[in-house]
Amino acid sequence: MKKIKIGIVGGTGYTGVELLRLLARHPHAELSVITSRGEAGQRVCDLFPSLRGTIDLAFTDPEQADLKACDLVFFATPNGIAMQQTRALLDAGVRVIDLAADFRIKDVAIWEKWYGMPHACPDLIKTAVYGLPEINRSEIVHARLVANPGCYPTAVQLGFLPLLRAGLVDEASLIADAKSGVSGAGRKAEVSSLFAEAGDNFKAYAVAGHRHLPEISQGLSLMCNHSVGLTFVPHLTPLIRGIHATLYARMTEDADIQQLFESYYRNEHFVDVLPPGSHPETRSVRGSNQCRIAVHRPQGGNMIVVLSVIDNLVKGAAGQAIQNMNIMFGLAETIGLEIVPLLP
Amino acid sequence: MKKIKIGIVGGTGYTGVELLRLLARHPHAELSVITSRGEAGQRVCDLFPSLRGTIDLAFTDPEQADLKACDLVFFATPNGIAMQQTRALLDAGVRVIDLAADFRIKDVAIWEKWYGMPHACPDLIKTAVYGLPEINRSEIVHARLVANPGCYPTAVQLGFLPLLRAGLVDEASLIADAKSGVSGAGRKAEVSSLFAEAGDNFKAYAVAGHRHLPEISQGLSLMCNHSVGLTFVPHLTPLIRGIHATLYARMTEDADIQQLFESYYRNEHFVDVLPPGSHPETRSVRGSNQCRIAVHRPQGGNMIVVLSVIDNLVKGAAGQAIQNMNIMFGLAETIGLEIVPLLP
Amino acid sequence: MKKIKIGIVGGTGYTGVELLRLLARHPHAELSVITSRGEAGQRVCDLFPSLRGTIDLAFTDPEQADLKACDLVFFATPNGIAMQQTRALLDAGVRVIDLAADFRIKDVAIWEKWYGMPHACPDLIKTAVYGLPEINRSEIVHARLVANPGCYPTAVQLGFLPLLRAGLVDEASLIADAKSGVSGAGRKAEVSSLFAEAGDNFKAYAVAGHRHLPEISQGLSLMCNHSVGLTFVPHLTPLIRGIHATLYARMTEDADIQQLFESYYRNEHFVDVLPPGSHPETRSVRGSNQCRIAVHRPQGGNMIVVLSVIDNLVKGAAGQAIQNMNIMFGLAETIGLEIVPLLP
Amino acid sequence: MKKIKIGIVGGTGYTGVELLRLLARHPHAELSVITSRGEAGQRVCDLFPSLRGTIDLAFTDPEQADLKACDLVFFATPNGIAMQQTRALLDAGVRVIDLAADFRIKDVAIWEKWYGMPHACPDLIKTAVYGLPEINRSEIVHARLVANPGCYPTAVQLGFLPLLRAGLVDEASLIADAKSGVSGAGRKAEVSSLFAEAGDNFKAYAVAGHRHLPEISQGLSLMCNHSVGLTFVPHLTPLIRGIHATLYARMTEDADIQQLFESYYRNEHFVDVLPPGSHPETRSVRGSNQCRIAVHRPQGGNMIVVLSVIDNLVKGAAGQAIQNMNIMFGLAETIGLEIVPLLP
Repeated sequence: MKKIKIGIVGGTGYTGVELLRLLARHPHAELSVITSRGEAGQRVCDLFPSLRGTIDLAFTDPEQADLKACDLVFFATPNGIAMQQTRALLDAGVRVIDLAADFRIKDVAIWEKWYGMPHACPDLIKTAVYGLPEINRSEIVHARLVANPGCYPTAVQLGFLPLLRAGLVDEASLIADAKSGVSGAGRKAEVSSLFAEAGDNFKAYAVAGHRHLPEISQGLSLMCNHSVGLTFVPHLTPLIRGIHATLYARMTEDADIQQLFESYYRNEHFVDVLPPGSHPETRSVRGSNQCRIAVHRPQGGNMIVVLSVIDNLVKGAAGQAIQNMNIMFGLAETIGLEIVPLLP
Repeated sequence: MKKIKIGIVGGTGYTGVELLRLLARHPHAELSVITSRGEAGQRVCDLFPSLRGTIDLAFTDPEQADLKACDLVFFATPNGIAMQQTRALLDAGVRVIDLAADFRIKDVAIWEKWYGMPHACPDLIKTAVYGLPEINRSEIVHARLVANPGCYPTAVQLGFLPLLRAGLVDEASLIADAKSGVSGAGRKAEVSSLFAEAGDNFKAYAVAGHRHLPEISQGLSLMCNHSVGLTFVPHLTPLIRGIHATLYARMTEDADIQQLFESYYRNEHFVDVLPPGSHPETRSVRGSNQCRIAVHRPQGGNMIVVLSVIDNLVKGAAGQAIQNMNIMFGLAETIGLEIVPLLP
Repeated sequence: MKKIKIGIVGGTGYTGVELLRLLARHPHAELSVITSRGEAGQRVCDLFPSLRGTIDLAFTDPEQADLKACDLVFFATPNGIAMQQTRALLDAGVRVIDLAADFRIKDVAIWEKWYGMPHACPDLIKTAVYGLPEINRSEIVHARLVANPGCYPTAVQLGFLPLLRAGLVDEASLIADAKSGVSGAGRKAEVSSLFAEAGDNFKAYAVAGHRHLPEISQGLSLMCNHSVGLTFVPHLTPLIRGIHATLYARMTEDADIQQLFESYYRNEHFVDVLPPGSHPETRSVRGSNQCRIAVHRPQGGNMIVVLSVIDNLVKGAAGQAIQNMNIMFGLAETIGLEIVPLLP
Repeated sequence: MKKIKIGIVGGTGYTGVELLRLLARHPHAELSVITSRGEAGQRVCDLFPSLRGTIDLAFTDPEQADLKACDLVFFATPNGIAMQQTRALLDAGVRVIDLAADFRIKDVAIWEKWYGMPHACPDLIKTAVYGLPEINRSEIVHARLVANPGCYPTAVQLGFLPLLRAGLVDEASLIADAKSGVSGAGRKAEVSSLFAEAGDNFKAYAVAGHRHLPEISQGLSLMCNHSVGLTFVPHLTPLIRGIHATLYARMTEDADIQQLFESYYRNEHFVDVLPPGSHPETRSVRGSNQCRIAVHRPQGGNMIVVLSVIDNLVKGAAGQAIQNMNIMFGLAETIGLEIVPLLP
């Protein structure tokens, strides 16, 4: 089979290097160009020595990069970049997966409010497919433009999905108490992400409103066909990779929720429902595209507690992007993603 | 003033060494005896080199220790030890503070169910005072036997207290999503607490039921004079010291909750209500007896989110025990506890 | 090609689970049996949820395990176990790789002194091949019994090897200042390895003498054909995986040491000599079988400083064992080991 | 006694907040002014919530600050700031302690080479006293200007001092292999200090030459009255506070080095020589002004190994500065510094 010719825009952040790690061992991918304004000319493996012997490319200046010769371009850029360049790529027949948030929210006004800038191509939002395969697989197959989900939204939506589809819980009072490792903040020089600040420390942040809130709310509402009430509280925890979402939903109708989850995800390779009584650990998915979920009803009451873990850089970013790529290009969904988590 | 002659039973765990750290600089405390079966004869500072130059005592075998000559004995032992020895000490006129759980639960049947053993002295439970000064200060003054609260119960109860006293929230659907550092598991050789297991990892545990659940439920019920519905989910986070409790309560009546909390805790030295919009960090109380609290109503909705942090070994254990001691012995509550948190 | 039928004795420690992680994706390996006395009957993936969906085996009681039907048995056991069972396996035509220390030291008296027990089969020591492929590749090809090197010895020997072979340094005053992550202590319940003990902490240990000292000394002496003087100081550093060896050697003859190292390791796939001025990070090899090395002559003086990093569980244990297996069975040395390090 | 009126220039870094933590509980210090260009007007405790209830000051713009009204000014600034302002302060009768490097190196040419800028007041260097009390106590008493030592130089010099004074080792081949926690890099937004970069990672840095090298060499040379040969290799280790220096010196004359160290430091409150066979941990000095040292002769050979630990922010910076202040103002050296290390 002919290899997929791939371009990466913005390859110096954590989602960029993670794409590189995964694509380097993907049998059908050919990494063709990787751009960076700041690092143009530098060899990728000089910036990321973990890639020595694996990636021989150098970063290209975005102005010089021939992205239109690619079959697929990944944007691993800050928000607001992909929307500037996507139309030209689509017009040239290139498919696009945006790992940032530019195409995730269907309501442009909401997007502009939360992201604080005018959207450059509102019409393209309509054509973009939200790239959560467990929900949108059939649309992703034909997508030219995929909006790859955020990390929190992936963990939270996969945890609530079977419950909302089954209509078993009070949709007006959902709670998502989520905890993220520090790599979620990106490879940006910020005091709050320093080892001496974030290490041996735990805190909530953005309780008043986090940008992933409208994305999650949109997704949950689509699952049950009307708007939901969601309280979303993200926290920063001193680990590098991993998201743990603890979800609370009040049951309105009795059911065997363990059985519900197991049957809902029976055919999903990347969603693993643990046996009753389990507590998934973030390290059990470290480096892999897996989401592991456990469901509880403490003391047999009517509050359901769902525990959902992912690696924020894999199933929450680069791995899910490659899963989408596999679907878009007619490959088996697991190709290049059969990685055993690194434990310990 | 004559110094308080102090004995510590079981000084080789983290609450024990924390008592030593704090008592060593307490101007009215005289550390008289510290027992350990396993380490009898060894100098304390050989086990804990941080105490070299500070503590000169050696561990005494419990059989040899003259605890009855003390004014006050702290039990820093596993559950089930203090209840064996407390009556004899009380009869000898010694006051007792138990840092374990033997006297925390008023309903003996509930205690025996959760702790899996018969209680050795149910009658003493009635006389024991639950040592949360912000609730029971006036009873602690006269107490002979204080049941020092658990770490989670301290953080959770202080966070819910103003809301429940004011009767502003739905008491039937309270949620406490709590995160603890690994020192909460004690200085016990267990695989699950190894650095290579608990490091770079995050997980919930005991979702089906944690021993601190009945303790918290009892406390919350007393605040509002009838039983409450509480979902309590503890998590293990890779830091050494610190508890972060994220509390959710549905508001049933509108109110200025920031003002409520500020006025409720105005005179409490060890409870600090942060300005609106704040996110307390566990490190902001590291090594100190402080509890810091922030209150939120995300998007102005009716779900209240309270963030409450303590150092589990100080306000959650040894520091609160000394706060209780100060009250019992007529001292200013802050003596020996005016420690500036260690940051970074 | 027929798959290699593999048995693992003692699969519940970190080297065991690491063997499982790597062998699960090895195209020519068929994991046949894995033993554990303590966990017999339990599914492997119940103990290590990271292996759910990857490994379906259950642990077998050692008494029941049909190891003689294997082509190759790995011992991932504590020291002193492999030497009890190796002869019977060899007699049955099974090849053996011991990841513990039973066959590493050629001088039985030295082994017995450092390991504190009589050796069960001194005659087999002679036939065992020390499994450092970069030194002993041609002997490993024909080996029936391979003594897989220790983690410190691997990092230290690869760092000193070109210097000692070239005869450029004072062999009487070598220094190896080595730092290891906590997984090096194994998955054993010990207080000193607790997160709350080893976290946010750094210390040297076993300065008077560590068991890896005679193993390293033996290896270095063989490189230069006479005995060497080595000071070896191991340290414990709060990371999970990784060894960083900082090596000091006094130069006795001028040379271009960068060029020396580059040409020495030119054809070694798993030893990567970094450009001049580099500082290898342990995370740049995390999860991979790579050793990365940088060489320095600070201020142009005559003290050579070599920096050598490995993942102690991979090149320092399970990965090197599989590298040895590949050599023993005529496979390309890199098969199953082409893993991109996990960064961040 | 009248309180010492104190100014701090540059109080937003880690040495600044550490000065605040310690001075807040110093009975003879009155914190009068703290400057910051970037944070002028902000309350100190809004930047550092750990100081809520402890420090009520706001940051003052440096242009507005009346530093000349102080008795003592601490510079907790980047290198190159103190030298601009010190003369005016000294002329106004204010004493100065510089926690940066401006006055540490006596040879101006060497300073200018390593710090890459012309020195603003070479004549003041001569009058500055190097503030390592264990060496220069009698000069510090009368000093108007104290150059507070660097963190590495403190740990390394205290470890070599008894050996060099006794003339027992080969001064031409000293080695200092030092490991520092990440707070040593300061509270600066830099990618290399991010949690996701420095966490779960270990590396050497600046092997070609670190700025502390000339400072250490100068100090060691003064101890033995001629120039020494020193190889200094610093490493970054994933902990917040702490330096561990592992020192190597070849013995040229036999002696009881344990006895040598014990007697040398017998009267030093802040240097603690551990019993034979010990391994000091960085956490055993966390938050305190202590230096703990152990000495070894592995296998009874002629290589001496000294292990020396300090908290880089206390004995390596702010604590030592206050120790110097105490000496300069005729106070007991330990006042305000009797802190029990925080363990765990």
